[in-house]
Parts: sequence; C-alpha cells; structure tokens
Amino acid sequence: MLTLASDFGTPYPAAMKGVILRRSDARLVDVAHDFPRQDVRAAAFWLREVLPEFPPAVHLVVVDPGVGTDRDALVVRAGDHALVGPDNGVLRPAARRLAGDDPVEPFVVRVDDPASTTFHGRDVFAPAAADVHETGVDSLDAIDRLSPVPTEGLVDLRLPEARVTEDGATGEVLVVDDFGNAVTNVPGDVLDGRETVEVNGECVPVGETFASVAPGERLVTVGSHGYVECDVNRGRGDDAFGLEAGDDVTLVG
Amino acid sequence: MLTLASDFGTPYPAAMKGVILRRSDARLVDVAHDFPRQDVRAAAFWLREVLPEFPPAVHLVVVDPGVGTDRDALVVRAGDHALVGPDNGVLRPAARRLAGDDPVEPFVVRVDDPASTTFHGRDVFAPAAADVHETGVDSLDAIDRLSPVPTEGLVDLRLPEARVTEDGATGEVLVVDDFGNAVTNVPGDVLDGRETVEVNGECVPVGETFASVAPGERLVTVGSHGYVECDVNRGRGDDAFGLEAGDDVTLVG
Amino acid sequence: MLTLASDFGTPYPAAMKGVILRRSDARLVDVAHDFPRQDVRAAAFWLREVLPEFPPAVHLVVVDPGVGTDRDALVVRAGDHALVGPDNGVLRPAARRLAGDDPVEPFVVRVDDPASTTFHGRDVFAPAAADVHETGVDSLDAIDRLSPVPTEGLVDLRLPEARVTEDGATGEVLVVDDFGNAVTNVPGDVLDGRETVEVNGECVPVGETFASVAPGERLVTVGSHGYVECDVNRGRGDDAFGLEAGDDVTLVG
Repeated sequence: MLTLASDFGTPYPAAMKGVILRRSDARLVDVAHDFPRQDVRAAAFWLREVLPEFPPAVHLVVVDPGVGTDRDALVVRAGDHALVGPDNGVLRPAARRLAGDDPVEPFVVRVDDPASTTFHGRDVFAPAAADVHETGVDSLDAIDRLSPVPTEGLVDLRLPEARVTEDGATGEVLVVDDFGNAVTNVPGDVLDGRETVEVNGECVPVGETFASVAPGERLVTVGSHGYVECDVNRGRGDDAFGLEAGDDVTLVG
Repeated sequence: MLTLASDFGTPYPAAMKGVILRRSDARLVDVAHDFPRQDVRAAAFWLREVLPEFPPAVHLVVVDPGVGTDRDALVVRAGDHALVGPDNGVLRPAARRLAGDDPVEPFVVRVDDPASTTFHGRDVFAPAAADVHETGVDSLDAIDRLSPVPTEGLVDLRLPEARVTEDGATGEVLVVDDFGNAVTNVPGDVLDGRETVEVNGECVPVGETFASVAPGERLVTVGSHGYVECDVNRGRGDDAFGLEAGDDVTLVG
Repeated sequence: MLTLASDFGTPYPAAMKGVILRRSDARLVDVAHDFPRQDVRAAAFWLREVLPEFPPAVHLVVVDPGVGTDRDALVVRAGDHALVGPDNGVLRPAARRLAGDDPVEPFVVRVDDPASTTFHGRDVFAPAAADVHETGVDSLDAIDRLSPVPTEGLVDLRLPEARVTEDGATGEVLVVDDFGNAVTNVPGDVLDGRETVEVNGECVPVGETFASVAPGERLVTVGSHGYVECDVNRGRGDDAFGLEAGDDVTLVG
C-alpha cells in the first residue's frame, strides 16, 4: 500500500502515479492533494493525525517549497511504515507517531541526474517510494541509493504545544479544516466539566456535539484528533471566531 | 467493492480509508467528498442517481449534521447492495432505487464506546462498512452488532415530485451540478414536442444538446438523470436563470 | 489499467466508474476531473504531459463541449496505449506523443441508442473504454462497434509552437497550473546561459529553482514539462505577471 499526499492540486499527482505504476503494482490511496500550498506545518499536522489510521504502508509526501535546492530527499522508516519526502520537517511529526516506541530511521536518497529542478515529486520522490514499496520497509538497507543518516542532522519540526494552566490554556490554531473548524493545539481535557469557556475573552458554550447548539451558533468542542476546536453548528468556526491558522487562542474556564 | 461519499473535503476521507483498509482489502471508489456541506437532500439525490451505476457494492455515506447525537447509525440492505450511514434520510432514495422490487432491510449499528463525538465516519461508519464488506451483503444477520429494525421507524426523505399539468409543470430545483446546470424535478417528457418553453415566465429554447444554442445562450434540456435542466451552452445555467437548489420552477409550454 | 480525465468535477466521474466496473475489473486511476471547463486545448496539453508517465493503459478522456451533436466518439490506438474520447482534438497531442514513431490508429465508436444526449461520458465513452480494456489494445479490430477510420478525417489540434529568435522567443501561455505558474510554449533552452530575461518588457531573474529568489518574488524558470514558466516563489505567477492562458509572451534575453 502506498499513500500520496501533496499540495499539488491536479494533475501533477497523476504524473507521480504513472511513475509509480511503471515500477510497482502497489495499491495507491490519496491522502490529500490540496494541503495549504507550501505550508509544511499544516501538512505535518494532518499527516500525523491521518497516517496512523492506515495499516503498514509507504507514505509519499510532497509539500516542498525548497524543491530543487540542496535540501535532502528522505526515506524514513517509522515502525512498519515508511515515509518518503523532503527534509523540511514535514515527515517528522507523523514519523514520531508512527514509530511509537521504536526509533525513527532516516535514509538520504541519492539523486541522480534529475529530469527537472521543479518537480521532484515525479522525478525523485515517486520513484523512491515505488522502490521502497517493492523492496519492503524491512529492507531499506538493500536499496542502493539510500544511505542511513543520523536523525540529529535532519530538519526538525515540532507542532507547538499549548500551555495548560489551572483555569484554562494558552495555545494557537494549528489548522482550519474544510468545514471551517479552527483546530487548536489545546488538549481536549481542558474542557472537562465545563459548560462554557472564554475564548479570547468571549464566553462560548462547550458542547459534546455540533448539534448541542442551534444551527449557526458557536461552540467549543473536542475534535476527532482530541484537541479543542472552535466551531459553528452547520457553519464555519473560523469566520465566526475570526480565527485562522497560527492565531493565538486563550481559553479561560 | 466499497464506495465512499461524504461532505468532508480532505483529508478526513483518507482517515476513513485507513480504518477500512486495516479491516478489509476492498476495492475503494470515491463517489464524491464535496457534497454540499451537511445538505442531506442534495446528497440523497446524487446517491440515488449515481449508485445504481455500480455493480453490487457496499456504499459508505457520511453526510451527517447530527453526528454524535442519538440518531442511529444504519446499515441498509437494498437488493445486492448495502448502504452504511446515519439515519437522517440520506440513504433512503438510493436504497429504494437499488432495492427495486425487493424490500429495503435496515439494521441499526450498535455503537460501542466511540472514540469521538464528531467523527463517526472514522469511528463508527467506516468500521461498519468494512465489516459488511468482509461478511457479505447476504450475511448481515451474522454481524453481531447489527440489529434488524422496521423500516417504518427510520427517518424518511423523499425528494419532492413536480406537479405535471396539461401545459407544463410546477417543480423545483433539486441540485445545481458542477457545470452550473440547474437540475429540476420535472420529468423530461414534459418537453416532448416543444421547441420553446416558458421558465418562470421567460421563453427559452428547448434543445436536445447544449450545442443546439450558441455559446453563452440559455436552453432547457433533459439531463442525464431524465429531468429537465436549466442550462447555458458553455456557461452556468444557475447564474443565467437566477436559480439555486430549492427554488421553484414553473414551466409553461 | 484505465485512467480517467474530465472537466466534470463530481459526482459524474463516479457514474462513469460504476459503468466501467460493471464491465471490467480494471485498475482505475484519476488523472484530473477539474480540467478548465470545456477547454479542449488545456486538457490536450495536460494529457500530452501526464499520460506518457503511465505504463500501457486505456485513457478515458471526456472534455466534450459538443456532447450529443454528431461529432464522433473515438478510440485511438497510440503505441501500447489507447485513448477514448470525443473527436474534438483533445486526444491528438497525447496520442502523437504516446505513439512515438508508430502510427496513430483511430477507430470510430458506433453509438447505439444512447440513454442521454448530455452524458456520453457515462453512456458512450465509459462502456467503450471498459470494452477496450477487456479486449486489449492489441485487439481493437475484434470489437464489433469499432470501425477504423483514416487519421486525416479527424479533428486535429496542435498546441501552438513558440517562435524562437536569436535573442529570445515569442510564444504564449498554454495553461496556468494550480500553483499559479504560467506555463508557456517557449522551449526551456531559450533560457540557457541567461541570468535575466525580459518578459513582455519587464526584466525578471532566471532561476533554476523557485527558491532562487526571495518568497513573493517573480522568476522565470524551466518547468517540469521543459517549457519556460513565469512563476513566483511561494506565490502565484499568473497574478504577478498579469498572465492567463492564451496570452502572448515575448522573451528577450
């Protein structure tokens, strides 16, 4: 199984699929190709949340503002999964979660004579992902153009953590999802036992479900990833709360 | 075969696919994940039109404004297909059409300790759909957490029917498709033998093909679902006719 | 393997997939379903660039402003690939490239009693593509409703070629991709050895990678298809250059 994620829109992902299918008969599953353009942090968040739902697989990830520069191309073994993508941090949060108690084992991909400097998804990452799929995640050392590298040398990316206090938390909006839910980094248990909470100074009801408030009304809930979300029942939380990715959020119970 | 339909955008459908693929090696086919948000009627229409094109399959449908409330989760056997989704009516028009002369046989899914109250697509419906696929549509009674229920107790949803008169019809716009075609519920044979028709008081040519009028011109035609559509050749009918889903349409021949 | 490309958005491609899967267990791969609406030239460009990445396959292409008129439905053998779609030129550039030194061999599809005049994707092209897949690209003559036709009688479409001069080139924008890169028809080697180039009179740096200029800055580069692109690092080139598909571009070195 080989999943694909990018910020490419269409039809560039199809070019990657063609390249893969010339080398492999892997089952292909799209994660998303409309990640916020060149937003490494948003992609890193979504991959960390979504990829662990999959059975063991090779995950091709191309959100790569530095394409064509000397940033490395990586294959990262994480438990019985492998991630393939650029060394810009986008793979790290997902790799840590997929690896669990195992170490994350990164390899640098040797890039020979790339056909382009602007589409490494097609010319570097897709062939590498296909080869990893065919060779097997357990046998990365057998792939000639992969060289193990120490984790310490890689670009790290850690999603910011909220500061939980006695009466609430201070965090930020990590992403806004396609429903308009503003997903924060505040752990959901901050809402335990509360019926309302102040969000940046405004009192908002805490609900277990969207439908706990009337359509069009705001609420704060615990999203499917376990974090506090600022939502609107049948509407967009980002608009109603005036929040976008990266904005600070202070919750006071 | 297992189809997926939702109003999720991305990447939530990928989380459902991961959950399914841990339980099943079903072939997955996306129907759409950009149904109008939380619009149960629009989804019900499209599913009724599209799902009968498929060979026998399990159809996972998550358009679910009541997620986390006490609305039931359903598996519905309809002929040699099964539909899996919330009890809000979204499955009913497709189920009736897929069942044909057979009865529709619904089952309630017992929900044990859901991981979230906001993402039953991942935590309830996807596992149920995978289990139905693995067990087989003929053997739903063998799935422990499914309990047969009488059809009468379920939320019904019937798409409104047009009133056909001697000189035309009164109906409404069911959906606007991605081309901007305003699809009404008026049966196509109302246009038989007519060269023009009045649409809400304005005279418009009847055409068999979009190209029967000049680019940018309005026409009324019979769409692929057999209903009257208000269209523009190489343009958007909804804009040109000032119509959106739910609007009344009166045709006078 | 069977790829699908259209300007349909959703959910009409799913109806085509259902029709195909009732006739074939082909692996289905989406190329794109959001090609610019009814823009035959843009689709022709993308297909020419993307389809050659695939292993031998049947390629279903439905960008068809003339649906329901007397334009023919075609199956075109091109090397070990086959293309299926309307005779409006959309298949030609890809067919020429896939055929390489082999001749392109077109067949007209006999259309029996179509169910609709507005959705030949579902009613004509999808069944034809499934049949071609099942019968095999080498055996098109064995399909009863296919009749060989001379290539000369078909609608041709040739993407315009740039005029390369001693000190630059005159061409046009072929497409704008989802990143906003304005892809011209000027061969990339026009930029060889240049550090800057005048684009329609304004001096712009030539870069090998997007990151060769600061974020938000314009550059001219060679895109993954080998043509000159007008781009912005981490931004949209079409907006910054004031260019859209079809616009003239003059490069002076």
